[in-house]
Amino acid sequence: MAQDPQRPVANAKRTVFFVSDRTGITAETLGHSLLTQFDATFEHVTLPFVDSPERAYLAIQQIEEANLANGERSIVFSTVIDDQVRAILRSANAVVFDFFETFIEPLEQELKLPSSHMVGRSHGLVDNTMYDVRIDAMNYALNHDDGVRTHLYSQADVILVGVSRTGKTPSCIYLALQYGVYAANYPLTEDDLEEGGLPKALEPYRNKLYGLTIQPQRLVQIRNERRPNSRYSSIRQCQYEIARAEALFKKENIPFVDTTTMSIEEIATTIMHERKIKRRVL
Amino acid sequence: MAQDPQRPVANAKRTVFFVSDRTGITAETLGHSLLTQFDATFEHVTLPFVDSPERAYLAIQQIEEANLANGERSIVFSTVIDDQVRAILRSANAVVFDFFETFIEPLEQELKLPSSHMVGRSHGLVDNTMYDVRIDAMNYALNHDDGVRTHLYSQADVILVGVSRTGKTPSCIYLALQYGVYAANYPLTEDDLEEGGLPKALEPYRNKLYGLTIQPQRLVQIRNERRPNSRYSSIRQCQYEIARAEALFKKENIPFVDTTTMSIEEIATTIMHERKIKRRVL
Repeated sequence: MAQDPQRPVANAKRTVFFVSDRTGITAETLGHSLLTQFDATFEHVTLPFVDSPERAYLAIQQIEEANLANGERSIVFSTVIDDQVRAILRSANAVVFDFFETFIEPLEQELKLPSSHMVGRSHGLVDNTMYDVRIDAMNYALNHDDGVRTHLYSQADVILVGVSRTGKTPSCIYLALQYGVYAANYPLTEDDLEEGGLPKALEPYRNKLYGLTIQPQRLVQIRNERRPNSRYSSIRQCQYEIARAEALFKKENIPFVDTTTMSIEEIATTIMHERKIKRRVL
Repeated sequence: MAQDPQRPVANAKRTVFFVSDRTGITAETLGHSLLTQFDATFEHVTLPFVDSPERAYLAIQQIEEANLANGERSIVFSTVIDDQVRAILRSANAVVFDFFETFIEPLEQELKLPSSHMVGRSHGLVDNTMYDVRIDAMNYALNHDDGVRTHLYSQADVILVGVSRTGKTPSCIYLALQYGVYAANYPLTEDDLEEGGLPKALEPYRNKLYGLTIQPQRLVQIRNERRPNSRYSSIRQCQYEIARAEALFKKENIPFVDTTTMSIEEIATTIMHERKIKRRVL
């Protein structure tokens, strides 16, 4: 193992464990955002539902096995809340990043309140209302995805506008699942693009509109997956559609974003932020 | 402000800021999982895309305004990576939980590698392959949602089975977006339930099947939203369908879970875990 701290070297393979008493999604998100800061390769192992001493010992066993296989101690990101389980995990021969322990005490001090130390309030045992809102919003997105059923646009928090394959549908669904937001999407047809004005169905909802655009080359690539070597996926057609769509956005003062290098999360968050949409679930 | 640390009291209203140079999703996730441990009410404000000194000063201004309005200093969960922006945020009159600062140094020491201190590796500027896999998986879920197009079940990583409104569709979509997993879903029809055996279309894919069930009372509630006071949403019908479906799962050795009190994340993670499915994206 290289010991010179001045010279960055690729270490031996490391296994990273995301340990949680619930889904492990929080631990993964946090750990992942830290690990992407390093130019190294990690093996990821998520251990969800580690909610008893028995399961904690099983986790320890897996960690020890990885240590042995790699010749390096493993890294553990833990969001476990239960005190007993946490104590067992701390005994692992690993670097343990314990999110709960790190932040809960300063938070207790600041709030002058004890924490419940109870599992399952986040990503689980949710009240049904929140579940229902997300599902309802998702169904709304799925049912208002084609620009045909426009009569319920009045219920929409936002209506995404763009040519085919700019990311409208996944963004609407993500907005529903993450924020409980009602997002419709209106695909601009060739007729819409030729006419050039705002499609009639959208007229009453100007302040809900948000445009998505994309670089022509990337659109060709995406459309080729769907219909290879078609007019639909030709560079000429993609360039034409995008130019017309962007001209429309500008003429009609519709805010829009280029999704070419964005993740679904980024597109959704940008829309929330720029359209100042209020989330319906926490 | 109450000063007695022995006696938990509800403090004055606090505003909690989730500050990020990207989407804020990680900061929200972390902060939310900690705050749910306290029996207090917080006002949540997410400030995404705080990626310049100008925006950091704007954030500070918002924080100061909240402090003034509440008569209590605000709480800040930050995942900002840029050193300059972080330094400005630290100057806020607030408790700042700086996620990056807390963990990056111990991680650098352990890995004996410097971190890049560069923004945007997580939830953003993703490589297109990962985007494509998630979108492709989502389209797969949307196109294999009705038990009709069963000829591409060979591509599925998992096939969810259950009666109408047990959470199959949202779980499939979440599996696609979060894990890039190809999840089909097969709704059990009344014919299927009457016959009682494994539906023919599922026969070749026994090892991919996973059942969802739910408490009858909760199913009534969900179905009533869709078709109030119908046979479909009657307690009698719901009880019948669930009893038959669970009998089928047991008879055919299909693992299944009761989704009544579970969030979408929990259902999806349970399926991943119990079916030992490998995620296709990080």
